[in-house]
Amino acid sequence: MSETHHPSIFEHYLDPRGNVVIGGRPATDWLDGSGRPHFLYSKSRLAQRIADLRAALPNSMGLNYAVKSNPFEHMLQTIDPLIDGFDIASIGEFRRLLAAGCAQQNISFAGPGKSLAEVSEAAAQDVKIIVESPHQLSLCEQVGSQLGRTVRAMVRINDQKARPGGGLSMAGNKTVFGWDLADFQENGVAAFAAAPHVEFGGLHIFYGSQILQPSAIAENLRISVETIEALHLPSAPNVINLGGGLGVPYGPKDVPLDLQDISTAWHKSSQKLLDRFPQTKLCVELGRYISSEAGILIVEVLDKKTIGGTHFLVCSGGLQNFAAATGNFGQVLRRNHPIRSARASSAPGTFTVTGPLCTPMDVFARDTALPAPQIGDHIVVFQAGAYGVTASPTSFLSHPQAVEKMVD
Amino acid sequence: MSETHHPSIFEHYLDPRGNVVIGGRPATDWLDGSGRPHFLYSKSRLAQRIADLRAALPNSMGLNYAVKSNPFEHMLQTIDPLIDGFDIASIGEFRRLLAAGCAQQNISFAGPGKSLAEVSEAAAQDVKIIVESPHQLSLCEQVGSQLGRTVRAMVRINDQKARPGGGLSMAGNKTVFGWDLADFQENGVAAFAAAPHVEFGGLHIFYGSQILQPSAIAENLRISVETIEALHLPSAPNVINLGGGLGVPYGPKDVPLDLQDISTAWHKSSQKLLDRFPQTKLCVELGRYISSEAGILIVEVLDKKTIGGTHFLVCSGGLQNFAAATGNFGQVLRRNHPIRSARASSAPGTFTVTGPLCTPMDVFARDTALPAPQIGDHIVVFQAGAYGVTASPTSFLSHPQAVEKMVD
Repeated sequence: MSETHHPSIFEHYLDPRGNVVIGGRPATDWLDGSGRPHFLYSKSRLAQRIADLRAALPNSMGLNYAVKSNPFEHMLQTIDPLIDGFDIASIGEFRRLLAAGCAQQNISFAGPGKSLAEVSEAAAQDVKIIVESPHQLSLCEQVGSQLGRTVRAMVRINDQKARPGGGLSMAGNKTVFGWDLADFQENGVAAFAAAPHVEFGGLHIFYGSQILQPSAIAENLRISVETIEALHLPSAPNVINLGGGLGVPYGPKDVPLDLQDISTAWHKSSQKLLDRFPQTKLCVELGRYISSEAGILIVEVLDKKTIGGTHFLVCSGGLQNFAAATGNFGQVLRRNHPIRSARASSAPGTFTVTGPLCTPMDVFARDTALPAPQIGDHIVVFQAGAYGVTASPTSFLSHPQAVEKMVD
Repeated sequence: MSETHHPSIFEHYLDPRGNVVIGGRPATDWLDGSGRPHFLYSKSRLAQRIADLRAALPNSMGLNYAVKSNPFEHMLQTIDPLIDGFDIASIGEFRRLLAAGCAQQNISFAGPGKSLAEVSEAAAQDVKIIVESPHQLSLCEQVGSQLGRTVRAMVRINDQKARPGGGLSMAGNKTVFGWDLADFQENGVAAFAAAPHVEFGGLHIFYGSQILQPSAIAENLRISVETIEALHLPSAPNVINLGGGLGVPYGPKDVPLDLQDISTAWHKSSQKLLDRFPQTKLCVELGRYISSEAGILIVEVLDKKTIGGTHFLVCSGGLQNFAAATGNFGQVLRRNHPIRSARASSAPGTFTVTGPLCTPMDVFARDTALPAPQIGDHIVVFQAGAYGVTASPTSFLSHPQAVEKMVD
């Protein structure tokens, strides 16, 4: 019946009695009384996470934040001084950085579909364009020619090598990402050389995401480095972005990564690459691994009911606020998401915890053990700092929007 | 490789040469030049669909529209004069009806999670509350007492009987919907009688959705009628809402329902129920079946590229506009969604058609045969009138929002 999630998911969020705390106060103290679901993000947890990553990274490797994992304004502002660059996936993400006052950073722009207008707006503001196809290179040349200067363009390579790891694969001929390796060698290098308004700025290679096996991450890095070492390039790359891929635990059987293992793999990759390209800046790009654990979602218990022996808690927030936590964003199999009652109580029970929607998809956890809340009490959903609001159908069934708050 | 979708999906949208048309013009004529994806909804197709349903329904059965399937303002205004009532799933949907000037209709409010504020706002404006739990009944009594009059409340029954059909099941002890049948008989009837500010308004029973087997729909109706016939009730119901459940074809193997088959089942159910409750108004509640076929989504081809022999078309719209069409909303297995090139051409090809997002989830169709478009041409995604904008993570990766337009 009830399964146990890894204790590290909760350890920084429980007081000695088992009440959920964040920013030095009981989680429910932060609610604004509107009844709307609340995403709370912890500045101190973000800072600690980034410090842990810095300790594991070789000095030669920079740390970029992938804006897509959580583009909330105050999240960007908190992360900005702690990292070396932002990776964006649309011009809209660049505008979010501008609006947050974070656009002075080193920024690179990936994505398989870019319009002339997007490349133009980005390049005009010194964003590096990650070129993923011959057409994207021609857009850069066109924009550079219009601007009367060179556009900095990195190339994303799709080496189509088999990639280990259980997460979402980002390479191979089943995915649209990057420039086909063979075509890049045969035609791409010459195409860069023949584009006078394009400056070859470096390489991007991204093998996957949400991988929880250290050995798989190490093997992916090894393959990426092997691909890069064998490349013919227009010139030595200024930058090599090795992607991210570090997973976080969501399901009951997920074990968090040990950063010591990842550190070893990063150091190996760094040494090999710097042997060939001693002047090149290396970086990794992480989103979910930085922001996920720093966030929680608080929802109110609207109803308690029993149907055919199943005890349900019906909550004010659900799929429309955090689709991934209900198994409806990228997951093949639904698993119980880590949740807790906001207040500890002496009466435990077994509950199926749902959102308020008229769809059977709207379930956070089935038959899970919880201190029994009353109607009006609150449930806390963990690992809610990444792919929450922006990865959810927020208008579905026209429920109120969630509140987002940064706390200490 | 390439699979064939049922021709009826396209038949009202192709001119003799195979170009996609809607509202009497080529589909691309409606684009506003912004480059944003466009949802176009056809008034005439909506009217025809509703006329077909009217012809199949017994005179005794009303037709309600489930707002959740598509709450776009002009969609509601178009449907309003053609139907007998609206079903809403949140107070937000009621406000959308008000804003569209459609709130004079017969409206009923379902949903497993309702707050006191929502019940209060709805009841004060004569919306019928569909009671799904003992707590919801007590909310109605509390609100009626505050208003100093009775609140009209229907009860939604969960009979936990096994339900056939391949769609999403809406009953049984795996789902949170409705009042447990046994508990309603044992305690619910008395609870209604003991609530002086609640008027028992009728029954709601909803067995599932997106069912494509006529025999399964007939069997579901038979089971629902059997449940209703055996009920002890506080009084004869004013209304019985039998739900919907009619599916539409999305995947290549899906065959559209023959409404003649459904008509037979509706007539049988009607006769049986009117034998027992001759004064009761019957209705069905349909959302997707009304709106889906009336809508198309138009996206621009931003790139063409080949990776490891796979030919990709990268489009301006994708998962963030229409998650269901990329297999990311309620589907267990991803199947190719019905799509076409907006303009017929003499050069066919085989393409994998993706959206612009940095995620491998963003795919409309793999290895599908299409007249080869050029960059700047357009792809049309069919069955886009239901669960499009509002069932999609519209902020994901901060791409521009889609335009929605009602056309003739």
